[in-house]
Amino acid sequence: MEVLENITYDEINIGDQCHFSKTLTEFDLLLFATVSGDVNPVHLDEAFASQSIFKERIAHGMWSGSLVSATTIYLNQSLEFHRPVKLGDTLLVTLCAKHKKDEKKIVTFACEVKNQYDKLVLTGEAKVIAPTQKISMPRPRLPNIQLSPK
Amino acid sequence: MEVLENITYDEINIGDQCHFSKTLTEFDLLLFATVSGDVNPVHLDEAFASQSIFKERIAHGMWSGSLVSATTIYLNQSLEFHRPVKLGDTLLVTLCAKHKKDEKKIVTFACEVKNQYDKLVLTGEAKVIAPTQKISMPRPRLPNIQLSPK
Repeated sequence: MEVLENITYDEINIGDQCHFSKTLTEFDLLLFATVSGDVNPVHLDEAFASQSIFKERIAHGMWSGSLVSATTIYLNQSLEFHRPVKLGDTLLVTLCAKHKKDEKKIVTFACEVKNQYDKLVLTGEAKVIAPTQKISMPRPRLPNIQLSPK
Repeated sequence: MEVLENITYDEINIGDQCHFSKTLTEFDLLLFATVSGDVNPVHLDEAFASQSIFKERIAHGMWSGSLVSATTIYLNQSLEFHRPVKLGDTLLVTLCAKHKKDEKKIVTFACEVKNQYDKLVLTGEAKVIAPTQKISMPRPRLPNIQLSPK
């Protein structure tokens, strides 16, 4: 059983970094279009996208945004989009603790997302409320998702 | 056949508003957890969430963010989260054109998301590149999505 453990306010030190990476699949594109309602053909229609300035389908900007959001409870987030993300691109997300505000347990993180060519895709800053209690629990299970043509 | 039509830079006037609304379902929570990789139990585990300050499961902040992103190609976005979004909440997204920068076809929108009690959930600003060419095309089809327990 995989265990999920949080990182508390006291465990976070200025300069701490965490990383994770994810590769954009067609499945991600389709799920994100469904959940956001954003069916812009530049994300979904190969023929259309091939005629666009991007030459191929690209990720929803907020998909990259959602990867940096997997931290905790948000107060605010700024996102600066630098480059499109294409199918098969592997993004490396880095969060770095920049500032702690003790009385409210607020931590500010610098966020950076790079692609497999080490090029910046997204930068930003996130302000979150960090947990004060350590929690360890089984990782919540996600359902299996099947896609079938409509 | 449903037709999708874009709004070009020239068609956007300062002060123009657009609205749309969406209700948070469990399906949205599960899809967003899958696509973002954010399996924080406050989004997925009813028992855990009931013991949290929110008393029940809440949406991923970026789910609300993704609703405002259904405009076009992004340059940047700021998001200020004011309130949690809970299952069954219906969000009303409003975008209002605030500024146009002719030479680069950049439009700045004020974004506001309110819940069914007319309370602010999210505010922010989005800077986008507006299309210059009118495009009309069949709405891309999304697949059927089936969830089954893992």
